[in-house]
Amino acid sequence: MASEGVKLGLIGLGTVGTGVVQLLTQNGDTIARKLGRPLALTRVASRSVHAKPHPPLENAQLSSDPWSVVHDPDIDLVVELIGGIEPARSLTLEALRRGKDVVTANKALLAQHGAEIFAAAEAHGAHIGFEASVAGGIPIIRTLREGLAGDRNRALFGIVNGTCNYILTTMSEHAEEFATVLARAQAQGLAEADPSFDIDGIDAAHKLTLLAMLAFGVRVSFESVYVEGIRHVSQTDILFAREFGYGIKLLAIAKEEDDTLEVRVHPTMIPRSSLLAGVGDAYNAIFVQGEALGSSLYFGRGAGSLPTATAVVADMIDTARQRGTIRGSGVPPLGMPWHELRAIRLRPIDEITSEYYLRFMALDRPGVLARIAGILGDHDISIASVIQRGRSEGDETVPLVLRTHAAKERNLKAALCLVDELPIVQGKSVSIRIEENLG
Amino acid sequence: MASEGVKLGLIGLGTVGTGVVQLLTQNGDTIARKLGRPLALTRVASRSVHAKPHPPLENAQLSSDPWSVVHDPDIDLVVELIGGIEPARSLTLEALRRGKDVVTANKALLAQHGAEIFAAAEAHGAHIGFEASVAGGIPIIRTLREGLAGDRNRALFGIVNGTCNYILTTMSEHAEEFATVLARAQAQGLAEADPSFDIDGIDAAHKLTLLAMLAFGVRVSFESVYVEGIRHVSQTDILFAREFGYGIKLLAIAKEEDDTLEVRVHPTMIPRSSLLAGVGDAYNAIFVQGEALGSSLYFGRGAGSLPTATAVVADMIDTARQRGTIRGSGVPPLGMPWHELRAIRLRPIDEITSEYYLRFMALDRPGVLARIAGILGDHDISIASVIQRGRSEGDETVPLVLRTHAAKERNLKAALCLVDELPIVQGKSVSIRIEENLG
Repeated sequence: MASEGVKLGLIGLGTVGTGVVQLLTQNGDTIARKLGRPLALTRVASRSVHAKPHPPLENAQLSSDPWSVVHDPDIDLVVELIGGIEPARSLTLEALRRGKDVVTANKALLAQHGAEIFAAAEAHGAHIGFEASVAGGIPIIRTLREGLAGDRNRALFGIVNGTCNYILTTMSEHAEEFATVLARAQAQGLAEADPSFDIDGIDAAHKLTLLAMLAFGVRVSFESVYVEGIRHVSQTDILFAREFGYGIKLLAIAKEEDDTLEVRVHPTMIPRSSLLAGVGDAYNAIFVQGEALGSSLYFGRGAGSLPTATAVVADMIDTARQRGTIRGSGVPPLGMPWHELRAIRLRPIDEITSEYYLRFMALDRPGVLARIAGILGDHDISIASVIQRGRSEGDETVPLVLRTHAAKERNLKAALCLVDELPIVQGKSVSIRIEENLG
Repeated sequence: MASEGVKLGLIGLGTVGTGVVQLLTQNGDTIARKLGRPLALTRVASRSVHAKPHPPLENAQLSSDPWSVVHDPDIDLVVELIGGIEPARSLTLEALRRGKDVVTANKALLAQHGAEIFAAAEAHGAHIGFEASVAGGIPIIRTLREGLAGDRNRALFGIVNGTCNYILTTMSEHAEEFATVLARAQAQGLAEADPSFDIDGIDAAHKLTLLAMLAFGVRVSFESVYVEGIRHVSQTDILFAREFGYGIKLLAIAKEEDDTLEVRVHPTMIPRSSLLAGVGDAYNAIFVQGEALGSSLYFGRGAGSLPTATAVVADMIDTARQRGTIRGSGVPPLGMPWHELRAIRLRPIDEITSEYYLRFMALDRPGVLARIAGILGDHDISIASVIQRGRSEGDETVPLVLRTHAAKERNLKAALCLVDELPIVQGKSVSIRIEENLG
C-alpha cells in the first residue's frame, strides 16, 4: 500500500471547513491507521484566509483563490465547502474533468445540477462524495446507497432541516407563535438573517431530491418537488393537532406507488407516539420503509461544524480508499451508474391521496357542520373525527376542526374552495396533511 | 466492467437463507443495475435440501454437503448462513484460504473466533462481510466502519436482542411477569425452545464484541464482556422504574474512558423520554455518542427472514463490487487492518461507575432507611431519591426503593453484602444499573 499521503485541497473555511481542519488534526493518526496512509491537507483556499484567524494549517498552502486548488496537479481530492451554485459548480466540474475526486456538502448544487456533475464524475472516472450534503453527520447517503441496497424501498420520511425542526419543537413546547420563535432563533444564530431558504422548505427540497434518487434508483429533478414551508403553522393548529394525538413536523416525503413517485415537503401531522415525533430541537432523522426490511430510522445532528465535518471526513477516507483501485470500480455516487437510474413519472401534488387536518373559522350556528360536511361529502371526502369548540354569539367565529379519512388532494382543494366562499365561514380554511404509518 | 455474473454459493437454507433466495429473485434486476453484472446463485447446500420444499432455485446446483460449495473453484462468494461454531468455522476458513469472499450472519463465530477469521481474510486478500450478524437489517456495521469513520466514538448503547426487547416491552405494557411472557413468546415462535442464549444475554454479548471493535478500533475478546440476562427482571421493578421515570431495557454498552474500555450487557434503566426507551417489541436500535458528532441512533428490525436477508444481500453487492478491484484495496472488515486495532485495557465490571436503582424488602420499622443509608454512605454511595411504600405491621416486609448518584460498582457490591445481612432486610437486594445520558 502506498505510504504517501492523499493530497487534499480544501475550498472554504467557514463553519464546516473549520470543523474539517479540526477533525483532521485531532483524528489524523486514527485516519491513517484506517487508510494505511495519511490524509494530507495540502492546499486551502478561503476568501477570508488573510482576514480572520484560522485553525492550525501547518503544512497547507493558503490562498484566497479557489482555482489555485483545482489547478494544482498534485491535489488528489478537492473538498468543496463554499456552498451555493457558482463558483462551486465550475470548480467542481473542472476538478472532476482533471480526474480529481471531489467531496462536497453542497446540496443545492447537486439537487439542481446533479445530472451534469454526476455525469462528469463518471466520464472522468472520478469519485464524488456528498454524505455531508444531507442530514449532516447522519450517514444516510451511504445507508441508502449501500446499506439498504438489497431491498426495494417503498417510502421515505425525513426531518432534514434543523432550523425548521427547532422552530416547530419550540413552538410546541413553549406555546409560542412562529414569528416569536423565529426572531429568537435568529438572535441566537440558530436561524439565518434571511431564513427563507430554510423555513420555506427549499433546503429540505434540495435534500429530498438527493434522498429520493438514492432511495428509489430514479431521476428526480428539484423542480418537480412540491414545497410548502412552515410560516403558516400556528399555535392554534399545534394545539388541535395535540388533541388528535399528533405533532407537526416539516417532513420531506417520497413514496413510490404504481410505478410513480411523489416527492413533497410540507408541514405534516404525525402521531405523537411515532419515533419521528420524538425528534426534537435541531436534530434530523430519516425514516425509511422497505419492502423486505420494513421500518428503519436514522437519527442525529443534521448541521453544525463538527457533526457535518464527520461526514466530510468519512467521505475523504472512502474516496481515498477507492483511489487506490481501478478507476470506475468503486461505488457509483447514486448507487448505480447515472444511465441506470430509471425515469419515473413524478406525481403532481394534485394527484396524491392523504388524510387531512382541516380547520375552519365558522359562525356558531346550527347546521354549519352539516353544510361543510355536505360539501366535503360531495367531493368524496369523509370525516374521521370532529372537534367543535366554544360557544359564541352573534358574528363571532369559532374553530371547527376535522380530521378526514384518505382523500384526493384535488378533491380537497375543490371542496375547500367552495367552503371558503360560504358566508358562515370566515377567512381561508387551514389544511395540513397527515401521515399515519410511521411506526 | 465484466458482464459475467458473480457466482454465489449459499450454505444454509433456514430462515435467513430462504429470505436471501427470495430477495435475489425479486430484486435481481435492480441488483444487476447497481453492480453492472448479476449475482448468480450457483450452488446451494442445505441439510434439508431434499426433505423440505425450497424456494425457486432455478439455476443453482443443490447439495446437502456444505463442502461442495467451498470446494467448487467456480464459486466467487460463499454465503455462510448455518450459524454456530462448527462446521461454520472450518468452512469459512477454507473458503477464505481459497481466496473466496465470504458473507456471513454468524455473530457467535466472529465474536469467538474473529482474530482467526479476520486474519485469514487479510492474509488471503479476501473480503468478509458480516452486516447481518448484528442488528439484522440495520446497517450498523457499515455505519460504524465507514459512516462514522471520521469521528472518535465515546460510547455505544444497543438494544441488539429482539427476543429480550419483546419480552421486556410486553412485561412493561401488559403488566405480566417474565415467565408468563417467555412461555407465550415460545408458543408463538418469538423465542427459542431453549431461550438461554437470548435471555441470558449471550447473543447480545456476541454482538457487542463486534460493535465495540468497530466503534473504538480496538481488540475485544468475547470472554471479557460482562453479561447479565433478564431472567431476574420483575414486574415490581418495572413499576418502580416507571415511578422514577425509567424503562428497563437489556442494553449492550461500550464506553471508552481514560484509555480503557468497559463492555457490558445487562438490564438497564433508561429515561422513558429517551429514544431508546421508545424502541419497542422485537425492534433493535443502536445509540452512539461521538466526540464530534454527538448523539446518533440507528433503528430497525434486528431479526427475521427478510430483514436480515437485506443485510446479507447488501454485503453481497459490496463484496462483489470490491472483487473487481485490486486485492486488499477494499474496506478492511473492521475498518482498519487487524494489526492496527489497538490493544486496550478492558475494565472489569467491579471498576465501573454507575448510578443504581436499589430495592430492599425491609421491615416497616423506624430507622430502617437510616440504617441502610448509613451503610451506603460508608461506601461513598449517596442517595438521589427514595420511594418508601406501604405500611405493614409485625414481620411483613415492604419495598424500600432508592436511586443513587454515581457510585463505584465495587463499593456497591460491598455495601449490598452488608445490607443483605441486616436482620431488618429480607432476601437479597435488587440492583439495576441506570444510564442517564441517552439523549
